[in-house]
Parts: sequence; C-alpha cells; structure tokens
Amino acid sequence: MTQSAQLGEIRHVDLVQPNQANHLGSYFGGAAMAQMDKIASLVAARHARRPFVTASCDRIDFRAPVFVGNLIELTGRVNLVGRTSLVVDVELSAEDMTTGERHICTQGGFTMVAQDRKTNPARLPPAPDRLIDFAASPAGSARVLELVFPGDTNSLGQLLGGNAMSLMGKAAQIAASRHTRSQVGMAASNKIDFIASTLEGELLDVTGQVVSVGRTSMRVAVRADAENLMSGERRLVGEAEYVMVALDEAGRPTPARPLG
Amino acid sequence: MTQSAQLGEIRHVDLVQPNQANHLGSYFGGAAMAQMDKIASLVAARHARRPFVTASCDRIDFRAPVFVGNLIELTGRVNLVGRTSLVVDVELSAEDMTTGERHICTQGGFTMVAQDRKTNPARLPPAPDRLIDFAASPAGSARVLELVFPGDTNSLGQLLGGNAMSLMGKAAQIAASRHTRSQVGMAASNKIDFIASTLEGELLDVTGQVVSVGRTSMRVAVRADAENLMSGERRLVGEAEYVMVALDEAGRPTPARPLG
Amino acid sequence: MTQSAQLGEIRHVDLVQPNQANHLGSYFGGAAMAQMDKIASLVAARHARRPFVTASCDRIDFRAPVFVGNLIELTGRVNLVGRTSLVVDVELSAEDMTTGERHICTQGGFTMVAQDRKTNPARLPPAPDRLIDFAASPAGSARVLELVFPGDTNSLGQLLGGNAMSLMGKAAQIAASRHTRSQVGMAASNKIDFIASTLEGELLDVTGQVVSVGRTSMRVAVRADAENLMSGERRLVGEAEYVMVALDEAGRPTPARPLG
Repeated sequence: MTQSAQLGEIRHVDLVQPNQANHLGSYFGGAAMAQMDKIASLVAARHARRPFVTASCDRIDFRAPVFVGNLIELTGRVNLVGRTSLVVDVELSAEDMTTGERHICTQGGFTMVAQDRKTNPARLPPAPDRLIDFAASPAGSARVLELVFPGDTNSLGQLLGGNAMSLMGKAAQIAASRHTRSQVGMAASNKIDFIASTLEGELLDVTGQVVSVGRTSMRVAVRADAENLMSGERRLVGEAEYVMVALDEAGRPTPARPLG
Repeated sequence: MTQSAQLGEIRHVDLVQPNQANHLGSYFGGAAMAQMDKIASLVAARHARRPFVTASCDRIDFRAPVFVGNLIELTGRVNLVGRTSLVVDVELSAEDMTTGERHICTQGGFTMVAQDRKTNPARLPPAPDRLIDFAASPAGSARVLELVFPGDTNSLGQLLGGNAMSLMGKAAQIAASRHTRSQVGMAASNKIDFIASTLEGELLDVTGQVVSVGRTSMRVAVRADAENLMSGERRLVGEAEYVMVALDEAGRPTPARPLG
Repeated sequence: MTQSAQLGEIRHVDLVQPNQANHLGSYFGGAAMAQMDKIASLVAARHARRPFVTASCDRIDFRAPVFVGNLIELTGRVNLVGRTSLVVDVELSAEDMTTGERHICTQGGFTMVAQDRKTNPARLPPAPDRLIDFAASPAGSARVLELVFPGDTNSLGQLLGGNAMSLMGKAAQIAASRHTRSQVGMAASNKIDFIASTLEGELLDVTGQVVSVGRTSMRVAVRADAENLMSGERRLVGEAEYVMVALDEAGRPTPARPLG
C-alpha cells in the first residue's frame, strides 16, 4: 500500500470495554455513535484541511450486536460535498478476536459543516472521483487514532508520554491478537523512543505490525506519527517494539501462529 | 410538570459501571460522593447564578449498597442560605432497572461558598419558602446532565458532537429500560439534528422519553438543551429519536410493555 | 518516617480496573507503562523542580501478570543525572488485596529531558548519594497521587471538589482493605473539609491511614496535600474521615482485624 493511499484512509480499531456495554455485555449504541462521529470529523478535516462540526446524522441501523472483548474497526469516506458542508459515510465493523469472523455492524452518513464557513468563503474540495473501498486491515496489524485534547497534555500543550505509551501498547496488543487469534500478554517492551512532541489538536496515528514470530512470542513494531489536520504536515513522533506472548484460555503461553 | 418546575430541579440519572465498583460489584462510596458534589455545585450555581466551590460536606451515611447495573438517580435542593455560602441537600437513590424497586441510598449536606465572594458583595438569594420534594422521575423517562469541560471541546470551545451523541444515547437507553423494565438494545438511531453549539462551562441537559411502543420496540425522543449557568439562558441544541428493542436475559427481542 | 523522607519519595497505589485488562482479567502492559511514565515525570520534576518530558524508556520486562482487583503500587527514584536529562528507575509491584502477597511485576528506566533546556542553562542537581530504597507502604495505609489537568478544574483552574472526594474515598478504601485484608464497603463519610484550593498543574497527594478499629468497622483518616512541583511549596487542602466496614465474600459485614 502506498503512503498516499494510507494517508487517504481513516481507520481506527478498538476493543469494546465493560464500561461501554450493558449487563448482557452488549455495546451501547450511543458509544458506537460517538466513535463514528469522531471518525467523520477526522475524515472531513483531512479532506478539506479545515475544522468541521457535526450538523446532523442520518438514520443509523444497528444490524448486529457487538460484545465486550470484540474488536471494532471504523473507517470513513467523503461521499457528497456541498459548498460549506459535506457528508461522510462511516462504517463500523465488529471482529471476533479469536476466530477473526467479521461483520458490518452499522453504517451512517454524517453531515459535517465547516466551522469557519462565515469567515472563509473558499469552496470545499470536490468529492473523490470514486469512493474509497472499505477494506479490512492487513493481517497482524492494527491502527489506532487519537485526537490530542487539553486534558492529555502538559502545560506546554505537548501530549504526555504516558498517554502515547498507552496507545502504542494497545496497538501492539491488537496486532498480536489479530495475528495469532488468541488472547495475548505483554512479555516485554523493548526500547521506546520519542523523537518529537505531539501537540494539542493534532492527530496521533499509531500503527502496530507483527514483524517476527518465535514459538509462543511475537515481536510487534509500533510507530506513532503526529499529523496537523489543518496543514497535513506529518512527522514521526515515536517508535517502539514489544514482545507479546500468545495465551490459551487459562492464561498459559501457547504456540503462536507462524508468519506468512 | 411546568417548564419552570422542571428548571428548578436538578436531576441526573446514571448507570453504575464496573469501573466504579469493587470486586463484589458494589459501588464505591468515593464515586458516589463525587457525583453528589457535582449535583450540589449545579444546584448552587442555578440558585444564585454565581460560581461555587465546595467548602465541606457533613456526615454522609450509606444506608444500602448499590450494585453494578443499578440505576442511580441524584437530586438536590437548596436548604440553608447564608451571606456568601449555602447548604445543598443531595439525595442519591438506587433503582433496580428490571424490577423498578427503588430506595434512598444516601443523603448529604454540602456547604458551597461563592467563588467570587471577595469581589462580589451581593447577598445570595434567600432559600425557597418550602423545600422542593425529591420525587421519582416520570415513567419511561430519563434525564442526564453533563458540565462541558475543556477536554470535551474542539479548539473553539464547542462540545464535540460525539460526546453529545453518547449522552443522548444513554438517555434513550435508560428511558426505554425504565419503561419496559428489561435490558434494551439500540436497533436504530433516526435522524439526529444539532441546532446550536454547547460551549465550555455550560450545562448540557438531556432528556429522553418513550413516545410510542410497538411489539418489541420503543421509539424514544431525546432532546438536549444547553444552559449557561451564570445567566440562566437556555437553548435547544440537539434533537434525536432512537428505536430501542426490549431484550430478554439471553439477549433476544422480547415484547415491550405497552404505553399508558 | 520523617516529613522530609516522605517528601523525597513518590509512591502511588491503585486498583486494577476491568477497563485496563483483557478478557482473561490480565492488566494491559500499555496501561502499566502509562502509570510508570507518570511516576517518572513526578520524580524528575521533584528532583530538579523543572518540567520534564519523556525521551525514551529502556527495555521493560513483565515478570508476572497482574489481575483485575489487584492493587498495584508504583515508586520511583532518580538513578543517573546528565546535564539536561536524567534517568528515573520505576518499579511496579502487584499486591493481592486479601492475602497481602506482593511481588515486583516490572521495573524500567525512563530517560527524562528538561523541557526548558533551551532557555534554562542551569545544570540539573546531582543524583542522591545513595539510592532510595523501594519499600512497601506502612500497614493499613495508602497513598494516591494525581496531577491536576485542565479537564479536572473549574473556570478558575481549581480542582473540582468531587474529583478530590473521589480520590480521598479511594485512599480510604485501599487503606482499610490493606489493614483487614478483605473487601470493604464505605458505611459513612464523616465531615470532609476543604481548606484550600488545588490548582491546575499541581500534584494532589492523598494519604489514608486506619486510625481505629471496632468490631467490623474501621475509621480511616485521610488528608490531601497540594504540591506545586516547580516551587516545592506544599499546603494542606482537605481532611476527611471515613467509616469502612470489612465484608466477607458474600458482601456481609465480617470482623475487622484489630489494630497493632
């Protein structure tokens, strides 16, 4: 996949947590929609390099329930573009972590309006000629996104290292689980380097990829890039490598699936 | 209930989540008190239209445990008013979502002092002639409140659409559960409209109400109002409608209780 | 322990929550590292009274899993000091709340660089002559730390009372559990007083200590101090006392272990 194709795509994977579910372990619709809205605003900002707010969202049908412990993966694409607003289609898929079984849970169209439409008369860029396909992630990989908020930064507006580490660890966790299709535990974090700061308002884009497999362990390389959503400028901010161990249902190390 | 009576009342309902409980599933006292303090500061700000900080809170007895999955509902009222401080009585009730059984879990008196007491010599408005009654919510309804913090907003200080959606979905969830007294799932979100922005520091006041019932499904109308706590100005910021489905203990659709 | 010895030490205890764990109930490595990084930045700031950012962290091995419901306790100490950077060793121990069994889960070296190194030419203070020992907490006590972020404060930059209450309740909970080695519930919160405000950017340092024991109940005294990390100035901000009850596995009151 080329760098520009990767850039054109917004993709975010997450684990459904107990706090996002009812007593039957089923993911709340409102939590799903909050995630979908985040994706819509990232897609809109990337398309036009301007800030957007949500004006409305069309009917959203929940086709199938999602459960605690499932992976959810969200992608979005610009569908229609008007003078100062556009519609982003967002898709949320659920994936059973151990079987890899995957189904579309819900889709929705979010109408986003340019926040600066009263002061910036420029028309929005046209929609792409053809819709980006919603494709599954490459095997053994995970991509997680986070917008940096004031509560996540120090007094200079820089993202705290610990928050970045937490996201990088999550990407390693999901990438390894997806590769070997079992629960995994972190055996070690090899050296983590922070190369540059991520600033408030920027997007932190973290990708993990399984790079080698031993008997029960997997090495996962993780990189974190910061992107200024208004200018499109991107820079590498952190690199890490983790050793993850495949676990059976009793939590004991179990052989990991070989690579390729 | 008249609009002014509704305005005089602070009422907030929430679900107890696993992260707020110990290993026996029992709600932490400290989490309960944090919620009670939030209600006290909202009641004080509404009464005097000035900002308050907590000075102290009297002895609070926890009469009965609250469990994960229970609803908790908090209400508060001004009891005593001094020159620059006042006492707010806060009550926290627990409600079993499926039986509707309800009991007062704890009550407490919070002494709040005006934050601007050194620069604003005005006396606080007197306490109401008679105490507002602590009454249960109307059937099939839910009201949830949130103060908008810097971490919840974009760079213009406007609440993110996704955060509002999450709260609106929660109100729909609780209103439907309360109506039919079972677990419920979200089958669809009909069109959601955002009419105006909610700003940092404002109160977001979200109410859900079951408006019609099919065989297993319920339509829930939700509206969100923003209130400037200092001026009292209120405006409609969002409207939505959800289709919720009653679920049995195995998570299968089950007949919903008819309306009225 | 003298006041200055206490000040030299950064110690933080927490409960592992379901949201920080995988489906087998095992604590995420990334969540552990985020906590360790927070401790490293507190230790560095206290040592030099200057702000620091994380530059890198060395290999971290996870020796043993930590489970939901375990206590984790983190401590840190300055190990090496360069011209504008230093290395903080951080240790994370897990403690079984009911047996008191304790083991080191992981250790790591975090390289922190002074954020103001381009404008402040002063050398960092040298490392202490001998390393501070990593010791367990005194019996029946708990110490929890929190940095105050913009999302935790009112519009004047003061920590919300409810957030402080939540932390104070957690310290009481952990101190009582550690004393009697069982689950505990909060029976009452005696008067809580807030003496001064805690400001954004400050450290809130909360300690709980069991002070007397009845048949099934324990009184826990809690104090909260705020510390300006840049100046080292500390002040008492809140005092509270809680009545906690020892609970058996069915959630019924059970005799508490006598003091001393």
